Amino acid sequence: MCALPTAAVVTVGTELTSGLRRDTNGSEIARALAEAGYHVASLSALPDDLLALESALRTLTSLHALVIVTGGLGPTHDDITREAASRALGRPLASDNGVVERLAALAGRHSEPGARAQMARQADVLEGAALLAAVAGTAPGQIVPTPAGALVLLPGPPNEMRPLLSRALEGRIPSTPPVRLRCIGITESDAQHRVQPAIAARDVDLTLLATPDDVEVVLFARDGRAEDLGPAAEAAKLALGTSCYSDDGASLAETVVDLARRSNARIACAESCTGGLVAAALTDVPGSSDVFEGGVVAYANAMKSGLLDVPEQLIARYGAVSDRTAIAMAEGALQVGDATLTVSTTGIAGPAGGSEAKPVGLVWFGIARHDGRTHAVERRFGGDRDMVRRRATATALDLLRRSLLEG
Amino acid sequence: MCALPTAAVVTVGTELTSGLRRDTNGSEIARALAEAGYHVASLSALPDDLLALESALRTLTSLHALVIVTGGLGPTHDDITREAASRALGRPLASDNGVVERLAALAGRHSEPGARAQMARQADVLEGAALLAAVAGTAPGQIVPTPAGALVLLPGPPNEMRPLLSRALEGRIPSTPPVRLRCIGITESDAQHRVQPAIAARDVDLTLLATPDDVEVVLFARDGRAEDLGPAAEAAKLALGTSCYSDDGASLAETVVDLARRSNARIACAESCTGGLVAAALTDVPGSSDVFEGGVVAYANAMKSGLLDVPEQLIARYGAVSDRTAIAMAEGALQVGDATLTVSTTGIAGPAGGSEAKPVGLVWFGIARHDGRTHAVERRFGGDRDMVRRRATATALDLLRRSLLEG
Repeated sequence: MCALPTAAVVTVGTELTSGLRRDTNGSEIARALAEAGYHVASLSALPDDLLALESALRTLTSLHALVIVTGGLGPTHDDITREAASRALGRPLASDNGVVERLAALAGRHSEPGARAQMARQADVLEGAALLAAVAGTAPGQIVPTPAGALVLLPGPPNEMRPLLSRALEGRIPSTPPVRLRCIGITESDAQHRVQPAIAARDVDLTLLATPDDVEVVLFARDGRAEDLGPAAEAAKLALGTSCYSDDGASLAETVVDLARRSNARIACAESCTGGLVAAALTDVPGSSDVFEGGVVAYANAMKSGLLDVPEQLIARYGAVSDRTAIAMAEGALQVGDATLTVSTTGIAGPAGGSEAKPVGLVWFGIARHDGRTHAVERRFGGDRDMVRRRATATALDLLRRSLLEG
Repeated sequence: MCALPTAAVVTVGTELTSGLRRDTNGSEIARALAEAGYHVASLSALPDDLLALESALRTLTSLHALVIVTGGLGPTHDDITREAASRALGRPLASDNGVVERLAALAGRHSEPGARAQMARQADVLEGAALLAAVAGTAPGQIVPTPAGALVLLPGPPNEMRPLLSRALEGRIPSTPPVRLRCIGITESDAQHRVQPAIAARDVDLTLLATPDDVEVVLFARDGRAEDLGPAAEAAKLALGTSCYSDDGASLAETVVDLARRSNARIACAESCTGGLVAAALTDVPGSSDVFEGGVVAYANAMKSGLLDVPEQLIARYGAVSDRTAIAMAEGALQVGDATLTVSTTGIAGPAGGSEAKPVGLVWFGIARHDGRTHAVERRFGGDRDMVRRRATATALDLLRRSLLEG
């Protein structure tokens, strides 16, 4: 399985090994490496400990064609990555004039003179290293030759790391990337039982990944043989039906925005228990203003009546969490601005507010369309407040998607 | 710094090293270990590779008092953790009758006889290991004696792992947890330069953690000596002033909800570029309905006029992204429901929509209070769409906080 060149990823920071912060860089870099054709042999987090990092880098750089380190390139005393790499590879550090100048230009931001002097540490470059100029932030990345290949040092903040990672991996021939089918409204086992027979005759490997709000069916070319991947993906999609919402990595919100754009629909939402998450997911998509009117977060009942014209008697009679209120909220959202399709959420996210008849996790959704068709959907979600809100948000987006597919 | 016993955490799964899934167990276990008084020397993810895991476990168990492995305890062929641990420690595997019986009782769930046979692998226990009976799921955990202390094997699914981790760490004396001062509106370097002299005389260690929207100042008791931690935290807070919004782990939104509750304020928001994120952050706090009325996501200008009574001529004359529109939006939100304090956001999140006069990253905020005081604040944020939205959301929450502090 390891005909591929091997790579290792190291993230540096005591905040990671003490659990104060969860790392996101490691898995992002591992994925980029896998797509660039490396077998990632290890992914590790180490504390800000010079000797430990030096020793790990000495071992890893002798074993792997590519070692990527993120973090510890900042200006403060616990930023020890440059020093550790220098010792591990026996390459002395020297200050780079270009970087010094760039830093001086940025130093005005800091009011403390001591902070300015400290910034200068970021200009220390290993002998023989190629620089990756900072795109965001101040710390440049470095590509250093090693006995087995290269060591790449990248800054820790994800927005600073990302552009330099792309630059470092530029020009490497990508292996066949896997096909990722994202699905909603289906369990992991059911997805497996539908897909497995459909692709049995194909030379592909299957992995399933489940999160609380979706299931991903991932197909890999076996032994680098790419020709079966396309037909297998088509067969799997057919087997998954409308549960599958994307085959190109698009998120559920991106799929909704794309479908709305193609059918000239304009969307609005009226949220209670999701509290802004549906609007936030849609507006997270660049260009969503083409199809998204806006929304109302009607947390208090006064907002439901005041902004969405939900009759107070209706709420009093059926309750805020009911099919009637859900539909009235969605219809109310249709009256504001120029929306042609709206979704509403009203439910009990917890931890308080549940009853025997209306337990925590119960959520009603309303869908209203400008052609007059409306309907309500009831769901009971497990999990804590955060989980209920996440699942309700995904369901609201999925209801918009299914309504757009119906045309 | 390492008078503490050392520990290592290993998460097992090719889905982690290939970046298909992001690990959450590692940081959770690391934090529990730090709180139980261990220095976590490394946190690593390894692929489902028997030889690689065997070799890693041989090294780690000889170095560290405690090694915790999660994942790879399931029934399928790629669950190799039991076998790897057995080889690394030279302790043979034997089937445990109690576990076999428990599995047999659960096997009825699976219709395939093959699946039942495969389940039996989960009953294989290392010689001399103590069992941690499964609370959720089917795989038990194991605590195995090692030359340096113990190796603990835990299942991978977080809900199965969590109760067994608590059991494995039971009875260990917790060390003094660190004090975490969360700050906003200050750079990492400036925070360090204010705090360092203030705590110089104290026996504490200082770490700074920066994200795009806040800075965390973390103080640790040095060598387990707790008596200096309280006075050092007080001195640090004084030096940080109003930049510090929490000393007990509370998020910015939690701080706002708490301040609003104590001053009987009711909050509403009117969002354009943040698209629901401010409302989502506030409603993420359990009990936020006590102080949060709701909000309007006025993405289209028609929504700004229709729901918030922002005069169309005002938008035409000054532009949607202006101090005037920001204030009119905040004032509009004050008219709906029973809010006493409102915040608005209007800006250019990008990637499109910027101009020379109003570049991507420009955001205007409006604050309106029921006593008639209003003001507008302008900020220019760097970064991509996601970053601009995150930073604008944090700033909107911070403006609410500062307004509540003024009283």
